[in-house]
Amino acid sequence: MTTNPDWIMIGGDGPESYNQQSSYQRALLEAAKDKMTEAISANLSLDLISNRFNVADFGCASGPNTFVAVQNIIDAVEEKYQRETGQNPVDNIEFQVLFNDFTLNDFNTLFKTLPPGRRYYSAGVPGSFFDRVLPKESFHIGVMSYAFHFTSKIPKGIMDRDSPLWNKDMQCTGFNQAVKKAYFDQYSIDTKKLLDVRAEELVPGGLMLLLGSCLRDGVKMSETPKGTVMDFIGESLSDLAKQGVTEQEKVDTFRTSIYFAEQGEIRQIIEENGKFTIEAFEDIIHSENEFPLDPKILAISFKAFYGAFISAHFGTEIMRKAFELVEVKAREQMSRLQNCKPGMQYLIVLRKN
Amino acid sequence: MTTNPDWIMIGGDGPESYNQQSSYQRALLEAAKDKMTEAISANLSLDLISNRFNVADFGCASGPNTFVAVQNIIDAVEEKYQRETGQNPVDNIEFQVLFNDFTLNDFNTLFKTLPPGRRYYSAGVPGSFFDRVLPKESFHIGVMSYAFHFTSKIPKGIMDRDSPLWNKDMQCTGFNQAVKKAYFDQYSIDTKKLLDVRAEELVPGGLMLLLGSCLRDGVKMSETPKGTVMDFIGESLSDLAKQGVTEQEKVDTFRTSIYFAEQGEIRQIIEENGKFTIEAFEDIIHSENEFPLDPKILAISFKAFYGAFISAHFGTEIMRKAFELVEVKAREQMSRLQNCKPGMQYLIVLRKN
Repeated sequence: MTTNPDWIMIGGDGPESYNQQSSYQRALLEAAKDKMTEAISANLSLDLISNRFNVADFGCASGPNTFVAVQNIIDAVEEKYQRETGQNPVDNIEFQVLFNDFTLNDFNTLFKTLPPGRRYYSAGVPGSFFDRVLPKESFHIGVMSYAFHFTSKIPKGIMDRDSPLWNKDMQCTGFNQAVKKAYFDQYSIDTKKLLDVRAEELVPGGLMLLLGSCLRDGVKMSETPKGTVMDFIGESLSDLAKQGVTEQEKVDTFRTSIYFAEQGEIRQIIEENGKFTIEAFEDIIHSENEFPLDPKILAISFKAFYGAFISAHFGTEIMRKAFELVEVKAREQMSRLQNCKPGMQYLIVLRKN
Repeated sequence: MTTNPDWIMIGGDGPESYNQQSSYQRALLEAAKDKMTEAISANLSLDLISNRFNVADFGCASGPNTFVAVQNIIDAVEEKYQRETGQNPVDNIEFQVLFNDFTLNDFNTLFKTLPPGRRYYSAGVPGSFFDRVLPKESFHIGVMSYAFHFTSKIPKGIMDRDSPLWNKDMQCTGFNQAVKKAYFDQYSIDTKKLLDVRAEELVPGGLMLLLGSCLRDGVKMSETPKGTVMDFIGESLSDLAKQGVTEQEKVDTFRTSIYFAEQGEIRQIIEENGKFTIEAFEDIIHSENEFPLDPKILAISFKAFYGAFISAHFGTEIMRKAFELVEVKAREQMSRLQNCKPGMQYLIVLRKN
């Protein structure tokens, strides 16, 4: 089994928690709701909607976005059932939601914040989503919200000063072809494994809905708003090293187990894996464009997501200071952000073959 | 839905935690292993053992006893399958274990301490076991270890000074007929509800294994070692009030939502409910008798179980002090303990009708 990572989305509901900070991801989820409903209506066979329907969220963190995602799915399944059978789903279908994340995830907070009045049974499923975590054919629709870009580990060589793959900077500016290939290879291995295990756990004809962020083909990470903010994070950490608040050595050895693939790379991996058919691969258009270009919101959003990695490596205090600097840099370099090439926020709909 | 209680088995794995302190319950579980194996061999239909087998523990706390209980069950199911089919269970059966307890239970500790090398998928199921927590017909064998004596609330009148039911003392000495009836009526209502919901969640022919503590018919709680130690706890709290460490008022209003029924009362409730057949109702003989009459072990064992109630009402410091006094009282009054009438540690095997 894959071991636990040394970072974990920050639990609880304090000011640094994922729970409190992930409002941007939530807005994207809301923007995706209609597309998810359409995807379920078009791609889920009515035969699969019987007295028991299981939904699984892989990489649920400690909430609350997972509740939005699974409720969107349940609403869509109920809507389809009601429309196509004329019967009331409440009388006929019991839903169970399986919330999966790493064993060290804060499930206590997740459980405490379960929405009152929900119409589903809940279960927390601890374990890495790169491994089997559920019995065979035990869920009908799975979702991954902003969790499909993880690798199970930092690729070999990336952190080794003597390796030609040594990647001194964060993975944006300075992300050369050899480094990119090392990340892509690791991502490809891990994602194929992830698809293999999900295919075993999913009922035949079941769906996986993947919400996340990728690159448009041919666009470099460093050319996108996301890559630019990641560079701000790297620069902020270097600034803190120059101020003596942390060591340059620490900054040089900071890496994340994340790879934002190009759209074509994701297609290639799914097709090579062969367990799923891509039913849709769509842009989610968010009311505030891909990212709201507000320095404060950018700093908060990236803190929700990257904060855990930075805290694990540098400690919470440095993490906080770094994001204060990120906000300043975003304000100073707004025109650079405005001139970025867009990245892509996607909904991928996979049907198990 | 039933709300969360104001007490919860103490989480984490610190010195006061249920996890660290529940070794006596664990010894009883080990003593029950052979009886559980026999019960499963005799009462579980081979038809129910197919490619997917779900075990549920209701009132699992934060471990580790739940792991012993569910492993006993899995071993017994595998043994029966292997013996009666000649096939290897590892090739053919996937187990999923559903760990249920109140929403505020420490599931994080439970998940962190899951036994390495286990051959089952794990899920935590938050919610009161007096309510439905799982979909219909979703498990094959359920277990409750030392959790079948709870009521969902303190019976009406018990805490009301103006009521004829007011029970000034803890529920042992001074437990009069009217008080006993109030507790029994509440226990009967709650336990019938518990049996109703479990019957809905259990597959037809599925089993419930209940491990716990009750009174032999006609024996009073205050005549048993357990009741005597509970009296020591009450006296210790009163001593602390006399010393000014806590208030007598607080001691007078301390109650637990527990009722140790007589064996005949438990039979009566299960029979009146009618959803299950009692296949066995047996004594578990522990190598150290019903309770090891060692003052230190008694104090530790009762702290594991009652500590949570006392901490919730008095705070951790008073709870610790009380159990120091309990140990002293047990040492001083050893002959009283030695002359007690035995209580009963039971295994009840229920088959869903």
